[in-house]
Amino acid sequence: MNTPSSPLVTRRRIQVGELGIPFIELTLTNGETFHLYDTAGPQGHDPRDGLPKRRQDWVQPRIDRGDTNFSQMHYARKGLITEEMQFVAAREGMEAEFVRAEVAAGRAIIPANKNHLELEPTIIGKAFKVKVNSNIGNSAISSSIDDEVEKLQWSVKWGADTVMDLSTGKNIHETREWILRNSPVPIGTVPLYQALEKVGGVVEDLNIDVYLQTIREQAEQGVDYFTVHAGVLLRAIPLTRDRVCGIVSRGGSIMAKWCMHHHKENFLYEHFDRILEVMKEYDVSFSLGDGLRPGAIADANDDAQFFELRILGELTTRAWEHDVQVMIEGPGHVPMHKIKENVDLQQEVCHEAPFYTLGPLTTDIAPGYDHITSAIGAAIIGMYGTAMLCYVTPKEHLGLPDKHDVKEGMIAYRIAAHAADLAKGHPGAQQWDDMLSKARFEFRWEDQFELGLDPETAREYHDATLPQAGAKVAHFCSMCGPAFCAYKLSQDVNEMADKLGDVVSIGGADGMSTDEIRAGLDEMAERFKAGGSEIYVPVDPS
Amino acid sequence: MNTPSSPLVTRRRIQVGELGIPFIELTLTNGETFHLYDTAGPQGHDPRDGLPKRRQDWVQPRIDRGDTNFSQMHYARKGLITEEMQFVAAREGMEAEFVRAEVAAGRAIIPANKNHLELEPTIIGKAFKVKVNSNIGNSAISSSIDDEVEKLQWSVKWGADTVMDLSTGKNIHETREWILRNSPVPIGTVPLYQALEKVGGVVEDLNIDVYLQTIREQAEQGVDYFTVHAGVLLRAIPLTRDRVCGIVSRGGSIMAKWCMHHHKENFLYEHFDRILEVMKEYDVSFSLGDGLRPGAIADANDDAQFFELRILGELTTRAWEHDVQVMIEGPGHVPMHKIKENVDLQQEVCHEAPFYTLGPLTTDIAPGYDHITSAIGAAIIGMYGTAMLCYVTPKEHLGLPDKHDVKEGMIAYRIAAHAADLAKGHPGAQQWDDMLSKARFEFRWEDQFELGLDPETAREYHDATLPQAGAKVAHFCSMCGPAFCAYKLSQDVNEMADKLGDVVSIGGADGMSTDEIRAGLDEMAERFKAGGSEIYVPVDPS
Repeated sequence: MNTPSSPLVTRRRIQVGELGIPFIELTLTNGETFHLYDTAGPQGHDPRDGLPKRRQDWVQPRIDRGDTNFSQMHYARKGLITEEMQFVAAREGMEAEFVRAEVAAGRAIIPANKNHLELEPTIIGKAFKVKVNSNIGNSAISSSIDDEVEKLQWSVKWGADTVMDLSTGKNIHETREWILRNSPVPIGTVPLYQALEKVGGVVEDLNIDVYLQTIREQAEQGVDYFTVHAGVLLRAIPLTRDRVCGIVSRGGSIMAKWCMHHHKENFLYEHFDRILEVMKEYDVSFSLGDGLRPGAIADANDDAQFFELRILGELTTRAWEHDVQVMIEGPGHVPMHKIKENVDLQQEVCHEAPFYTLGPLTTDIAPGYDHITSAIGAAIIGMYGTAMLCYVTPKEHLGLPDKHDVKEGMIAYRIAAHAADLAKGHPGAQQWDDMLSKARFEFRWEDQFELGLDPETAREYHDATLPQAGAKVAHFCSMCGPAFCAYKLSQDVNEMADKLGDVVSIGGADGMSTDEIRAGLDEMAERFKAGGSEIYVPVDPS
Repeated sequence: MNTPSSPLVTRRRIQVGELGIPFIELTLTNGETFHLYDTAGPQGHDPRDGLPKRRQDWVQPRIDRGDTNFSQMHYARKGLITEEMQFVAAREGMEAEFVRAEVAAGRAIIPANKNHLELEPTIIGKAFKVKVNSNIGNSAISSSIDDEVEKLQWSVKWGADTVMDLSTGKNIHETREWILRNSPVPIGTVPLYQALEKVGGVVEDLNIDVYLQTIREQAEQGVDYFTVHAGVLLRAIPLTRDRVCGIVSRGGSIMAKWCMHHHKENFLYEHFDRILEVMKEYDVSFSLGDGLRPGAIADANDDAQFFELRILGELTTRAWEHDVQVMIEGPGHVPMHKIKENVDLQQEVCHEAPFYTLGPLTTDIAPGYDHITSAIGAAIIGMYGTAMLCYVTPKEHLGLPDKHDVKEGMIAYRIAAHAADLAKGHPGAQQWDDMLSKARFEFRWEDQFELGLDPETAREYHDATLPQAGAKVAHFCSMCGPAFCAYKLSQDVNEMADKLGDVVSIGGADGMSTDEIRAGLDEMAERFKAGGSEIYVPVDPS
């Protein structure tokens, strides 16, 4: 039997324009092309060499002319449109002047350390595509440097817009160096972890000097944003006493312990201005940490959480006085009906600085599936205006994610982010859905697979019941089989309607009497039968 | 080294009270007990014998006294509280009179065919726990009767509240018989599929007589609810012409083709009263099918969909005139910002009849992950008042689900349903989350696993990095390692606060001057150090 072969989709990485905006270009089996936003970066480089330094020519002139504040916000407020702004504008399909205005107003940030020259800049703000962060990093228990670089590459392959290196063990500096030199996306860290290593793991011995030394070291390497837990104030700690889950942020609990031991105010808060000096010198963005975020449904939206949020708003104002870019970290564990209040309050008290949330998880009852409990919350909080979503993997609460977990977490969050883009009406977002659904309705299986977030898995699932090449062009799938395929029947119906022309009216709605409708229907039936209405004969699946 | 052994949780199936309400009783390692809602039914029976006929004694008296309308709505409207109503009331922790009133008003249904005596009744309505339906059923391509019974048992093991048998191939009657005799949950079908088999698969040859013969056959077997596509009216079909995905409901596309061919009105609509007679004789509930539901984001909330919804409202009124129970099927594919309108309109035009939706999927771009794209929509639509969610598996759009897919789909949907219960403030819902989070914070790992939706997977994920028995009682996990565990640090902070008593005030908020606060803090620091503030020494993980 003659089985039709499956036409192929062409997938290639392209760079558009002078600035080389990266996209994946798909050429579909029907000849149409489609561009996918691409975060994977230049391919095929030896990790020991790192990626090409595409920002070298952008940053060097700023150094040469003696700039002292390198922040994108600083340039934006001076009315300058940087190459980074042009890049993200072209990447998002927006005007560069709009990007500049959003950055100047603090409603969006472009994390881009002047020393992270390998970066392909991205913008984080509610007017733009919702972004996804992936966490990597070794812990005291396991993993190696090679593992971490591989996790970085794996994360961006699956669409991570930024990556946080949360390493806490040995070789923390060297691990970070490898990650930065191989990262096309902004890298964030929590400098407190390394500062704690420097004082031998003794929380009480932490101090502002070792912290400043640490952030300068990391800024020099090119880290693009720092989580800083400057909002965990001594007087707020007792508010967590009656919680079900206390303080669940690592940085938050470290600072709380320090504050309690010394009975002094948080040194990050007290010396915030000294931190700011480093931030603007390198253009490191703040990710103001929510050290008192809720870690259980019971603790959501409580006094501790919202007290800290107001402090973060105060710190935002102080950072903006120095043109330092800021985003605000958010929860955590929040039931659905309490999500909107989080965004509304954050936008109000933090003056519309971008919100960056961890999920939130919408229930606590599913350990092993928190990528799903939290993708629900992430999609909703994204719809309400959250700019970036920190992914959660299936291993959350249980252990360190492996490659499979990273991929599962990334895909769940790209779903959440895109669902939010659709709900916000982001320009062009729905075109992607429409391309895929059209391919689906027209039985262009290969197009459907390749337009999806994970072509390999889609193809594998399809082939699990219909592995034959012919099935890739068949006008049915194994869900319904050939006789019951709704798409095919629906296409038949459409063809019938086309044969009849426009005469199938919406009876009853246009004032026709029942008899008139009946007479019209009989006439139509005769015309349809005369036109030939054969039953669908499926392509042989063998 | 002496490694502590892991204390065990006791899990047993109990039946409470005279009616034998099923629960799973967990006895946790700290001695607390917790009852989980349980749908798995009596265990250990030979499928050839079927389950015990627990409703025999409830139904026989109604037959003996010569009832002709067996519907729960009929009894409810006469002011009678049936055993089924008592059962679901006890199961949900509600008053039986409240259940009766909700059923009488049509706001809730108890699908319970008088011939499905093995049933453990469940209630579907917005005032109750959100329910989840699992679809099983062979297709022309694959699967056997044994497979289907196993899928039934697998579905209820993972928490399916109802199961739809969507078989379309050979042995459809026998498959259904096996499923019914072994099902503790309500079984739904789409009788149109079998009617189509009876006319040799020729859509045009369908007619009301073969349909009535089919529903009587299935009602006699004990099917609890029928999807009936009586709302696909001829005049609405052209409204689907310009859709991206046309008609995606199998039943809807069959009826559309029939209507177009004959140019007659849908025979299910025309002869709805004759269908009603069968429904009330057995107490089969309607699940009024949304044959014109959107199958793509582009088609959501369009004229075709909402035209049909209004017709379903009209049919609801007609059914209620005969005291026949009704729920309304809903979409499909809907972006998040268009979800609420679906529930609001459905509740309005269908007079608060329970809504039963398929997802909805919130984006089309993730074939292979539609359990996640749709769990997002399901959670949201549940929060807004949808009573039952039809699950979607990872194989949606691609192929027939296997056991793994059924489990993945069920867990995603139990997450969605419980997240919705939390958001609606269903009584007792949050207690489950709180029990689990408390176990998590107190490092009672086995309790955390067993309280979760999937204990095996949670345990397996934990053990992937820390397999030693001692790690099950360790005060950290592999995510952060011993030195960085936020929970442990947070417990330390709590202990510090306890040692100090109540003296850690919310400085500044109570009118103290900065100097007064500072003096108080210094005093507290001294007291804490005097009390001994040792660093956490972890349990040896080896």
